[in-house]
Amino acid sequence: MLSKSQISLLTSLQHKKFRREHGLFLVEGYKSISEFIDSHYHIHTLYHTPDVAPKLLKLSQKINLQEISLADLQKVSGLKTPADAIATVKIPQFKALTHTDLENKFSLVLDGIQDPGNMGTIIRTADWFGITNIICSDDCVEVYNPKVVQATMGSLARINVLYAGLSDFISNANLPVYGALLNGDNIYNTNFGMEALLVMGNEGNGIRPEIQQLITKAVTIPRIGQAESLNVAIATAIICSEAAGKSYK
Amino acid sequence: MLSKSQISLLTSLQHKKFRREHGLFLVEGYKSISEFIDSHYHIHTLYHTPDVAPKLLKLSQKINLQEISLADLQKVSGLKTPADAIATVKIPQFKALTHTDLENKFSLVLDGIQDPGNMGTIIRTADWFGITNIICSDDCVEVYNPKVVQATMGSLARINVLYAGLSDFISNANLPVYGALLNGDNIYNTNFGMEALLVMGNEGNGIRPEIQQLITKAVTIPRIGQAESLNVAIATAIICSEAAGKSYK
Repeated sequence: MLSKSQISLLTSLQHKKFRREHGLFLVEGYKSISEFIDSHYHIHTLYHTPDVAPKLLKLSQKINLQEISLADLQKVSGLKTPADAIATVKIPQFKALTHTDLENKFSLVLDGIQDPGNMGTIIRTADWFGITNIICSDDCVEVYNPKVVQATMGSLARINVLYAGLSDFISNANLPVYGALLNGDNIYNTNFGMEALLVMGNEGNGIRPEIQQLITKAVTIPRIGQAESLNVAIATAIICSEAAGKSYK
Repeated sequence: MLSKSQISLLTSLQHKKFRREHGLFLVEGYKSISEFIDSHYHIHTLYHTPDVAPKLLKLSQKINLQEISLADLQKVSGLKTPADAIATVKIPQFKALTHTDLENKFSLVLDGIQDPGNMGTIIRTADWFGITNIICSDDCVEVYNPKVVQATMGSLARINVLYAGLSDFISNANLPVYGALLNGDNIYNTNFGMEALLVMGNEGNGIRPEIQQLITKAVTIPRIGQAESLNVAIATAIICSEAAGKSYK
Protein backbone atom coordinates (compact mmCIF):
# COMPACT_ATOMS: atom_id res chain seq x y z
CA MET A 1 0.00 0.00 0.00
CA LEU A 2 1.20 3.49 -0.83
CA SER A 3 1.79 5.87 2.06
CA LYS A 4 0.47 9.39 1.96
CA SER A 5 3.97 10.76 1.42
CA GLN A 6 4.57 8.34 -1.47
CA ILE A 7 1.30 9.40 -3.12
CA SER A 8 2.29 13.00 -2.60
CA LEU A 9 5.75 12.45 -4.15
CA LEU A 10 4.43 10.50 -7.13
CA THR A 11 1.69 12.96 -7.99
CA SER A 12 4.07 15.91 -7.56
CA LEU A 13 6.34 14.48 -10.28
CA GLN A 14 3.72 15.38 -12.90
CA HIS A 15 5.13 18.91 -12.47
CA LYS A 16 8.52 20.14 -13.67
CA LYS A 17 9.18 22.11 -10.49
CA PHE A 18 9.00 18.97 -8.34
CA ARG A 19 10.90 16.82 -10.86
CA ARG A 20 13.76 19.31 -10.52
CA GLU A 21 13.43 19.46 -6.74
CA HIS A 22 13.54 15.67 -6.32
CA GLY A 23 15.75 14.88 -9.34
CA LEU A 24 13.24 12.21 -10.38
CA PHE A 25 10.83 11.54 -13.20
CA LEU A 26 8.05 9.02 -13.80
CA VAL A 27 7.86 6.13 -16.21
CA GLU A 28 4.58 4.22 -16.52
CA GLY A 29 4.02 0.68 -17.74
CA TYR A 30 6.41 -2.19 -17.12
CA LYS A 31 7.32 -2.52 -20.78
CA SER A 32 8.68 1.03 -20.89
CA ILE A 33 10.16 0.75 -17.39
CA SER A 34 12.11 -2.34 -18.45
CA GLU A 35 13.83 -0.30 -21.17
CA PHE A 36 15.08 2.09 -18.49
CA ILE A 37 16.17 -0.83 -16.27
CA ASP A 38 18.30 -2.13 -19.16
CA SER A 39 19.93 1.28 -19.70
CA HIS A 40 22.32 3.66 -17.95
CA TYR A 41 19.35 5.17 -16.06
CA HIS A 42 19.04 4.44 -12.38
CA ILE A 43 15.62 3.38 -11.13
CA HIS A 44 14.73 4.87 -7.74
CA THR A 45 11.63 2.79 -6.94
CA LEU A 46 9.45 0.49 -9.01
CA TYR A 47 5.84 0.31 -7.85
CA HIS A 48 4.13 -2.62 -9.52
CA THR A 49 0.85 -4.49 -9.44
CA PRO A 50 0.90 -8.22 -8.55
CA ASP A 51 0.68 -9.13 -12.27
CA VAL A 52 4.19 -7.83 -12.86
CA ALA A 53 5.85 -9.80 -10.04
CA PRO A 54 6.87 -12.84 -12.17
CA LYS A 55 8.77 -10.55 -14.55
CA LEU A 56 10.91 -9.14 -11.73
CA LEU A 57 12.87 -12.28 -10.91
CA LYS A 58 15.78 -11.56 -13.26
CA LEU A 59 16.47 -7.85 -13.08
CA SER A 60 19.68 -6.34 -14.42
CA GLN A 61 19.63 -3.60 -11.74
CA LYS A 62 19.12 -3.90 -7.99
CA ILE A 63 15.89 -2.00 -7.58
CA ASN A 64 13.67 -0.92 -4.71
CA LEU A 65 10.48 -2.82 -5.40
CA GLN A 66 7.06 -2.20 -3.92
CA GLU A 67 3.95 -4.15 -4.78
CA ILE A 68 0.83 -2.00 -4.90
CA SER A 69 -2.81 -2.51 -5.83
CA LEU A 70 -4.33 -1.32 -9.08
CA ALA A 71 -6.42 1.07 -6.96
CA ASP A 72 -3.23 2.62 -5.58
CA LEU A 73 -1.73 2.81 -9.07
CA GLN A 74 -4.81 4.68 -10.24
CA LYS A 75 -4.25 7.27 -7.51
CA VAL A 76 -0.80 8.21 -8.79
CA SER A 77 -0.99 7.49 -12.53
CA GLY A 78 -1.17 10.30 -15.05
CA LEU A 79 -2.84 7.98 -17.57
CA LYS A 80 -6.56 7.57 -18.16
CA THR A 81 -6.03 3.83 -18.14
CA PRO A 82 -3.11 3.04 -15.83
CA ALA A 83 -0.93 0.19 -16.97
CA ASP A 84 0.69 -2.28 -14.56
CA ALA A 85 3.50 -0.31 -12.93
CA ILE A 86 4.98 3.11 -12.30
CA ALA A 87 8.61 3.87 -11.53
CA THR A 88 10.52 6.85 -10.26
CA VAL A 89 13.74 7.22 -12.24
CA LYS A 90 16.69 9.51 -11.48
CA ILE A 91 17.19 12.41 -13.86
CA PRO A 92 20.78 12.03 -15.11
CA GLN A 93 23.32 14.77 -15.61
CA PHE A 94 23.36 15.77 -19.26
CA LYS A 95 26.79 15.02 -20.69
CA ALA A 96 28.32 17.44 -23.13
CA LEU A 97 28.70 15.95 -26.61
CA THR A 98 32.19 16.02 -28.13
CA HIS A 99 32.98 16.01 -31.84
CA THR A 100 33.75 12.29 -31.54
CA ASP A 101 30.20 11.69 -30.30
CA LEU A 102 28.82 13.44 -33.37
CA GLU A 103 31.04 12.30 -36.24
CA ASN A 104 30.05 9.66 -38.78
CA LYS A 105 26.41 9.91 -37.84
CA PHE A 106 23.31 12.08 -37.98
CA SER A 107 22.18 14.01 -34.93
CA LEU A 108 18.94 15.93 -34.45
CA VAL A 109 18.87 19.56 -33.34
CA LEU A 110 15.45 20.75 -32.12
CA ASP A 111 14.73 24.47 -31.96
CA GLY A 112 11.76 25.21 -29.71
CA ILE A 113 9.69 22.02 -29.96
CA GLN A 114 6.83 22.70 -27.54
CA ASP A 115 4.39 19.83 -27.77
CA PRO A 116 5.13 16.81 -25.53
CA GLY A 117 3.58 14.37 -27.99
CA ASN A 118 5.71 15.70 -30.84
CA MET A 119 8.87 15.55 -28.72
CA GLY A 120 8.17 11.98 -27.62
CA THR A 121 7.38 10.84 -31.14
CA ILE A 122 10.57 12.47 -32.45
CA ILE A 123 12.64 10.60 -29.83
CA ARG A 124 10.97 7.30 -30.74
CA THR A 125 11.52 7.90 -34.45
CA ALA A 126 15.17 8.88 -33.91
CA ASP A 127 15.67 5.61 -32.03
CA TRP A 128 14.19 3.66 -34.96
CA PHE A 129 16.61 5.29 -37.40
CA GLY A 130 19.67 4.81 -35.17
CA ILE A 131 20.00 8.50 -34.31
CA THR A 132 21.31 8.56 -30.75
CA ASN A 133 21.95 12.27 -30.11
CA ILE A 134 19.25 14.92 -29.81
CA ILE A 135 20.26 18.48 -28.98
CA CYS A 136 17.38 20.66 -27.72
CA SER A 137 17.20 24.42 -27.36
CA ASP A 138 16.58 25.47 -23.78
CA ASP A 139 12.96 26.37 -24.58
CA CYS A 140 12.05 22.91 -25.87
CA VAL A 141 9.59 20.95 -23.72
CA GLU A 142 11.42 18.98 -21.01
CA VAL A 143 11.97 15.36 -22.06
CA TYR A 144 11.11 14.13 -18.54
CA ASN A 145 7.58 15.51 -18.85
CA PRO A 146 5.39 12.38 -18.38
CA LYS A 147 3.65 12.94 -21.71
CA VAL A 148 6.99 13.00 -23.51
CA VAL A 149 8.20 9.90 -21.69
CA GLN A 150 4.96 8.10 -22.57
CA ALA A 151 5.16 8.99 -26.26
CA THR A 152 8.76 7.75 -26.56
CA MET A 153 7.56 4.20 -25.76
CA GLY A 154 10.81 3.47 -23.93
CA SER A 155 13.11 4.96 -26.56
CA LEU A 156 14.10 7.81 -24.22
CA ALA A 157 16.20 5.23 -22.33
CA ARG A 158 18.49 4.87 -25.36
CA ILE A 159 18.81 8.45 -26.62
CA ASN A 160 21.31 11.08 -25.42
CA VAL A 161 19.41 14.30 -24.94
CA LEU A 162 21.32 17.52 -24.39
CA TYR A 163 19.79 20.94 -23.69
CA ALA A 164 22.11 23.64 -24.99
CA GLY A 165 22.36 27.05 -26.55
CA LEU A 166 21.99 26.03 -30.19
CA SER A 167 24.05 28.82 -31.76
CA ASP A 168 27.18 27.85 -29.86
CA PHE A 169 26.52 24.16 -30.21
CA ILE A 170 26.08 24.27 -33.98
CA SER A 171 29.04 26.62 -34.48
CA ASN A 172 31.33 24.31 -32.52
CA ALA A 173 30.14 21.05 -34.06
CA ASN A 174 31.98 21.56 -37.35
CA LEU A 175 29.55 19.41 -39.31
CA PRO A 176 27.22 19.94 -42.27
CA VAL A 177 23.99 21.55 -40.99
CA TYR A 178 20.75 20.64 -42.79
CA GLY A 179 17.67 22.62 -41.81
CA ALA A 180 14.04 22.04 -42.74
CA LEU A 181 12.85 25.29 -44.32
CA LEU A 182 10.07 26.16 -46.76
CA ASN A 183 12.30 27.27 -49.63
CA GLY A 184 15.14 24.75 -49.47
CA ASP A 185 16.29 22.08 -51.90
CA ASN A 186 14.06 19.10 -52.60
CA ILE A 187 14.97 16.44 -50.00
CA TYR A 188 14.60 13.73 -52.62
CA ASN A 189 17.45 15.23 -54.65
CA THR A 190 19.67 15.84 -51.62
CA ASN A 191 22.67 13.68 -50.78
CA PHE A 192 22.83 13.92 -46.99
CA GLY A 193 26.21 12.18 -46.83
CA MET A 194 27.12 10.18 -43.73
CA GLU A 195 27.28 12.79 -40.98
CA ALA A 196 25.34 15.96 -40.25
CA LEU A 197 23.17 17.91 -37.89
CA LEU A 198 19.49 17.90 -38.89
CA VAL A 199 17.75 21.02 -37.56
CA MET A 200 13.97 21.12 -37.03
CA GLY A 201 12.03 24.16 -35.84
CA ASN A 202 9.11 25.11 -33.64
CA GLU A 203 5.58 23.92 -34.54
CA GLY A 204 4.30 27.38 -35.45
CA ASN A 205 7.34 29.52 -36.14
CA GLY A 206 9.90 27.14 -37.59
CA ILE A 207 13.62 27.63 -37.05
CA ARG A 208 14.68 30.95 -35.42
CA PRO A 209 16.43 33.41 -37.77
CA GLU A 210 19.72 33.28 -35.82
CA ILE A 211 19.77 29.49 -36.14
CA GLN A 212 18.75 29.63 -39.81
CA GLN A 213 21.94 31.59 -40.46
CA LEU A 214 23.99 28.59 -39.35
CA ILE A 215 22.32 26.18 -41.77
CA THR A 216 24.68 25.11 -44.54
CA LYS A 217 21.96 23.46 -46.63
CA ALA A 218 18.25 24.24 -46.43
CA VAL A 219 16.01 21.34 -47.43
CA THR A 220 12.27 21.07 -48.11
CA ILE A 221 9.78 18.24 -48.33
CA PRO A 222 7.99 19.04 -51.59
CA ARG A 223 4.29 19.70 -51.18
CA ILE A 224 2.11 17.99 -53.77
CA GLY A 225 -1.33 18.60 -52.25
CA GLN A 226 -2.76 21.51 -50.34
CA ALA A 227 -2.02 21.09 -46.62
CA GLU A 228 -0.45 24.29 -45.34
CA SER A 229 2.18 22.45 -43.35
CA LEU A 230 3.24 19.09 -41.96
CA ASN A 231 3.26 18.20 -38.27
CA VAL A 232 6.86 18.66 -37.04
CA ALA A 233 7.22 15.04 -35.89
CA ILE A 234 6.08 13.91 -39.34
CA ALA A 235 8.50 16.26 -41.10
CA THR A 236 11.33 15.10 -38.83
CA ALA A 237 10.56 11.46 -39.62
CA ILE A 238 10.58 12.04 -43.37
CA ILE A 239 13.92 13.85 -43.19
CA CYS A 240 15.41 11.16 -40.89
CA SER A 241 14.18 8.57 -43.37
CA GLU A 242 15.90 10.36 -46.28
CA ALA A 243 19.13 11.01 -44.39
CA ALA A 244 19.69 8.22 -41.87
CA GLY A 245 17.31 5.58 -43.23
CA LYS A 246 19.05 5.39 -46.58
CA SER A 247 22.62 5.89 -45.48
CA TYR A 248 22.70 2.43 -43.88
CA LYS A 249 21.27 0.55 -46.86
CA MET B 1 -25.19 35.27 -26.63
CA LEU B 2 -25.66 31.52 -26.82
CA SER B 3 -29.03 30.13 -25.77
CA LYS B 4 -29.26 27.15 -23.45
CA SER B 5 -30.36 24.93 -26.32
CA GLN B 6 -27.41 26.07 -28.45
CA ILE B 7 -24.99 25.32 -25.63
CA SER B 8 -26.63 21.95 -25.21
CA LEU B 9 -26.36 21.17 -28.94
CA LEU B 10 -22.74 22.30 -29.23
CA THR B 11 -21.53 20.37 -26.20
CA SER B 12 -23.47 17.27 -27.26
CA LEU B 13 -21.52 17.18 -30.54
CA GLN B 14 -18.40 16.10 -28.63
CA HIS B 15 -20.10 12.67 -28.65
CA LYS B 16 -20.53 10.39 -31.64
CA LYS B 17 -24.10 9.46 -30.70
CA PHE B 18 -25.25 13.09 -30.96
CA ARG B 19 -23.18 13.80 -34.07
CA ARG B 20 -25.10 10.98 -35.76
CA GLU B 21 -28.42 12.15 -34.35
CA HIS B 22 -27.97 15.73 -35.56
CA GLY B 23 -25.88 14.96 -38.66
CA LEU B 24 -23.42 17.65 -37.55
CA PHE B 25 -19.83 17.90 -36.38
CA LEU B 26 -17.71 20.66 -34.84
CA VAL B 27 -14.79 22.57 -36.30
CA GLU B 28 -12.87 24.97 -34.05
CA GLY B 29 -10.76 27.94 -35.03
CA TYR B 30 -11.53 30.25 -37.94
CA LYS B 31 -8.49 29.14 -39.89
CA SER B 32 -9.71 25.54 -40.02
CA ILE B 33 -13.34 26.60 -40.46
CA SER B 34 -12.39 28.65 -43.52
CA GLU B 35 -11.01 25.50 -45.17
CA PHE B 36 -14.45 23.90 -44.78
CA ILE B 37 -16.19 27.05 -46.08
CA ASP B 38 -14.05 26.82 -49.23
CA SER B 39 -14.93 23.14 -49.75
CA HIS B 40 -17.91 20.98 -50.64
CA TYR B 41 -18.89 20.86 -46.95
CA HIS B 42 -21.93 22.81 -45.86
CA ILE B 43 -21.59 24.99 -42.77
CA HIS B 44 -24.66 24.89 -40.54
CA THR B 45 -23.77 27.78 -38.19
CA LEU B 46 -20.59 29.72 -37.54
CA TYR B 47 -20.29 31.10 -34.01
CA HIS B 48 -17.48 33.62 -33.89
CA THR B 49 -15.94 36.13 -31.51
CA PRO B 50 -15.91 39.83 -32.51
CA ASP B 51 -12.26 39.49 -33.66
CA VAL B 52 -13.31 37.31 -36.57
CA ALA B 53 -16.01 39.64 -37.92
CA PRO B 54 -13.77 41.51 -40.42
CA LYS B 55 -12.82 38.19 -42.06
CA LEU B 56 -16.45 37.34 -42.75
CA LEU B 57 -17.19 40.03 -45.33
CA LYS B 58 -16.30 37.94 -48.36
CA LEU B 59 -17.57 34.45 -47.74
CA SER B 60 -17.87 31.89 -50.52
CA GLN B 61 -20.90 30.26 -48.83
CA LYS B 62 -24.03 31.86 -47.43
CA ILE B 63 -23.66 31.00 -43.77
CA ASN B 64 -25.68 31.45 -40.60
CA LEU B 65 -23.47 33.70 -38.52
CA GLN B 66 -23.71 34.40 -34.84
CA GLU B 67 -21.35 36.60 -32.90
CA ILE B 68 -20.59 35.32 -29.40
CA SER B 69 -18.31 36.31 -26.55
CA LEU B 70 -15.09 34.51 -25.71
CA ALA B 71 -16.79 33.48 -22.44
CA ASP B 72 -19.56 31.79 -24.44
CA LEU B 73 -16.99 30.12 -26.71
CA GLN B 74 -15.24 28.74 -23.65
CA LYS B 75 -18.51 27.12 -22.54
CA VAL B 76 -18.81 25.04 -25.70
CA SER B 77 -15.22 24.52 -26.81
CA GLY B 78 -13.50 21.17 -26.46
CA LEU B 79 -10.09 22.87 -26.43
CA LYS B 80 -8.13 23.90 -23.37
CA THR B 81 -7.47 27.23 -25.05
CA PRO B 82 -10.44 28.03 -27.30
CA ALA B 83 -9.56 29.79 -30.51
CA ASP B 84 -11.75 32.47 -32.09
CA ALA B 85 -14.70 30.54 -33.52
CA ILE B 86 -16.59 27.26 -33.58
CA ALA B 87 -18.76 25.97 -36.40
CA THR B 88 -21.30 23.22 -36.80
CA VAL B 89 -20.78 21.51 -40.14
CA LYS B 90 -23.06 18.98 -41.86
CA ILE B 91 -21.75 15.43 -42.04
CA PRO B 92 -21.84 14.54 -45.74
CA GLN B 93 -22.94 11.29 -47.29
CA PHE B 94 -19.91 9.17 -48.04
CA LYS B 95 -19.68 8.64 -51.76
CA ALA B 96 -18.60 5.27 -53.07
CA LEU B 97 -15.26 5.43 -54.89
CA THR B 98 -15.16 4.09 -58.42
CA HIS B 99 -12.12 2.70 -60.19
CA THR B 100 -11.80 6.05 -62.01
CA ASP B 101 -11.50 7.80 -58.64
CA LEU B 102 -8.62 5.51 -57.71
CA GLU B 103 -6.59 5.12 -60.88
CA ASN B 104 -3.32 6.94 -61.59
CA LYS B 105 -2.89 7.86 -57.95
CA PHE B 106 -2.14 6.53 -54.49
CA SER B 107 -4.92 6.01 -51.97
CA LEU B 108 -4.60 5.14 -48.29
CA VAL B 109 -6.41 2.18 -46.74
CA LEU B 110 -6.54 2.26 -42.92
CA ASP B 111 -7.27 -0.94 -41.02
CA GLY B 112 -8.38 -0.21 -37.46
CA ILE B 113 -6.67 3.10 -36.70
CA GLN B 114 -7.98 3.92 -33.22
CA ASP B 115 -6.21 7.04 -32.00
CA PRO B 116 -7.83 10.36 -33.02
CA GLY B 117 -4.47 12.17 -33.09
CA ASN B 118 -2.99 9.54 -35.40
CA MET B 119 -6.03 9.65 -37.70
CA GLY B 120 -5.95 13.44 -37.91
CA THR B 121 -2.22 13.52 -38.57
CA ILE B 122 -2.57 10.88 -41.29
CA ILE B 123 -5.26 12.96 -43.02
CA ARG B 124 -3.09 16.10 -42.83
CA THR B 125 -0.07 14.20 -44.19
CA ALA B 126 -2.11 12.65 -47.02
CA ASP B 127 -3.26 16.14 -48.00
CA TRP B 128 0.38 17.32 -48.12
CA PHE B 129 1.31 14.48 -50.47
CA GLY B 130 -1.69 14.97 -52.74
CA ILE B 131 -3.43 11.77 -51.62
CA THR B 132 -7.14 12.56 -51.76
CA ASN B 133 -8.79 9.23 -50.96
CA ILE B 134 -8.67 7.49 -47.58
CA ILE B 135 -10.61 4.27 -47.10
CA CYS B 136 -11.18 3.32 -43.44
CA SER B 137 -12.30 0.03 -41.96
CA ASP B 138 -15.55 0.36 -40.05
CA ASP B 139 -13.71 0.11 -36.72
CA CYS B 140 -11.43 3.09 -37.38
CA VAL B 141 -12.03 6.13 -35.19
CA GLU B 142 -14.70 8.39 -36.71
CA VAL B 143 -13.12 11.26 -38.67
CA TYR B 144 -15.71 13.71 -37.32
CA ASN B 145 -14.46 13.17 -33.76
CA PRO B 146 -13.38 16.68 -32.66
CA LYS B 147 -9.85 15.50 -31.84
CA VAL B 148 -9.46 14.09 -35.35
CA VAL B 149 -10.85 17.26 -36.94
CA GLN B 150 -8.46 19.37 -34.83
CA ALA B 151 -5.39 17.30 -35.77
CA THR B 152 -6.16 17.52 -39.50
CA MET B 153 -5.63 21.32 -39.35
CA GLY B 154 -8.30 21.85 -42.00
CA SER B 155 -7.10 19.09 -44.34
CA LEU B 156 -10.22 17.02 -43.67
CA ALA B 157 -12.11 19.51 -45.85
CA ARG B 158 -10.13 18.35 -48.89
CA ILE B 159 -9.93 14.58 -48.38
CA ASN B 160 -12.52 11.98 -49.45
CA VAL B 161 -12.99 9.60 -46.55
CA LEU B 162 -14.91 6.38 -47.08
CA TYR B 163 -15.77 3.82 -44.40
CA ALA B 164 -16.06 0.39 -45.97
CA GLY B 165 -15.53 -3.30 -45.54
CA LEU B 166 -11.87 -3.45 -46.57
CA SER B 167 -11.84 -7.00 -47.97
CA ASP B 168 -14.48 -6.22 -50.57
CA PHE B 169 -13.08 -2.77 -51.28
CA ILE B 170 -9.54 -3.99 -51.91
CA SER B 171 -10.69 -6.98 -53.96
CA ASN B 172 -12.80 -4.77 -56.23
CA ALA B 173 -10.22 -2.00 -56.66
CA ASN B 174 -8.05 -3.97 -59.07
CA LEU B 175 -4.88 -2.05 -58.12
CA PRO B 176 -1.48 -2.97 -56.67
CA VAL B 177 -1.82 -3.29 -52.89
CA TYR B 178 1.18 -2.31 -50.77
CA GLY B 179 0.99 -3.12 -47.07
CA ALA B 180 3.28 -2.05 -44.24
CA LEU B 181 4.40 -5.28 -42.56
CA LEU B 182 7.41 -6.22 -40.45
CA ASN B 183 8.94 -8.66 -42.93
CA GLY B 184 8.33 -6.95 -46.26
CA ASP B 185 10.73 -5.57 -48.85
CA ASN B 186 12.84 -2.54 -48.00
CA ILE B 187 10.76 0.53 -48.95
CA TYR B 188 13.90 2.26 -50.24
CA ASN B 189 14.33 -0.44 -52.91
CA THR B 190 10.65 -0.50 -53.85
CA ASN B 191 9.29 1.05 -57.01
CA PHE B 192 5.76 2.04 -56.01
CA GLY B 193 4.76 2.89 -59.58
CA MET B 194 2.11 5.54 -60.19
CA GLU B 195 -1.03 4.01 -58.69
CA ALA B 196 -1.72 1.78 -55.71
CA LEU B 197 -3.50 1.24 -52.44
CA LEU B 198 -1.24 1.77 -49.41
CA VAL B 199 -2.53 -0.26 -46.45
CA MET B 200 -1.65 0.68 -42.85
CA GLY B 201 -2.72 -1.30 -39.80
CA ASN B 202 -3.84 -0.78 -36.21
CA GLU B 203 -1.46 0.81 -33.68
CA GLY B 204 -0.98 -2.37 -31.66
CA ASN B 205 -1.96 -5.25 -33.91
CA GLY B 206 -1.03 -4.12 -37.40
CA ILE B 207 -3.00 -5.24 -40.44
CA ARG B 208 -5.59 -7.98 -39.87
CA PRO B 209 -4.68 -11.41 -41.31
CA GLU B 210 -7.61 -11.41 -43.77
CA ILE B 211 -6.48 -8.05 -45.13
CA GLN B 212 -2.82 -9.14 -45.20
CA GLN B 213 -3.84 -11.86 -47.65
CA LEU B 214 -4.91 -9.22 -50.15
CA ILE B 215 -1.56 -7.42 -50.12
CA THR B 216 0.32 -7.88 -53.37
CA LYS B 217 3.58 -6.41 -52.05
CA ALA B 218 4.58 -6.21 -48.38
CA VAL B 219 6.96 -3.37 -47.59
CA THR B 220 8.99 -2.48 -44.49
CA ILE B 221 10.74 0.62 -43.21
CA PRO B 222 14.16 -0.76 -42.27
CA ARG B 223 15.00 -0.40 -38.59
CA ILE B 224 18.52 0.83 -37.92
CA GLY B 225 18.28 1.54 -34.18
CA GLN B 226 16.38 -0.19 -31.41
CA ALA B 227 12.86 1.23 -31.15
CA GLU B 228 10.41 -1.65 -31.18
CA SER B 229 8.08 0.09 -33.59
CA LEU B 230 7.18 3.38 -35.23
CA ASN B 231 4.05 5.38 -34.49
CA VAL B 232 1.51 4.54 -37.23
CA ALA B 233 1.16 8.15 -38.42
CA ILE B 234 4.96 8.34 -38.72
CA ALA B 235 5.13 5.05 -40.64
CA THR B 236 2.30 6.21 -42.94
CA ALA B 237 4.13 9.48 -43.64
CA ILE B 238 7.38 7.73 -44.53
CA ILE B 239 5.58 5.38 -46.92
CA CYS B 240 3.57 8.24 -48.47
CA SER B 241 6.86 10.09 -48.91
CA GLU B 242 8.44 7.12 -50.71
CA ALA B 243 5.41 6.39 -52.87
CA ALA B 244 3.57 9.64 -53.57
CA GLY B 245 6.28 12.16 -52.66
CA LYS B 246 8.70 10.86 -55.23
CA SER B 247 6.29 9.97 -58.00
CA TYR B 248 5.62 13.65 -58.72
CA LYS B 249 9.25 14.72 -58.88
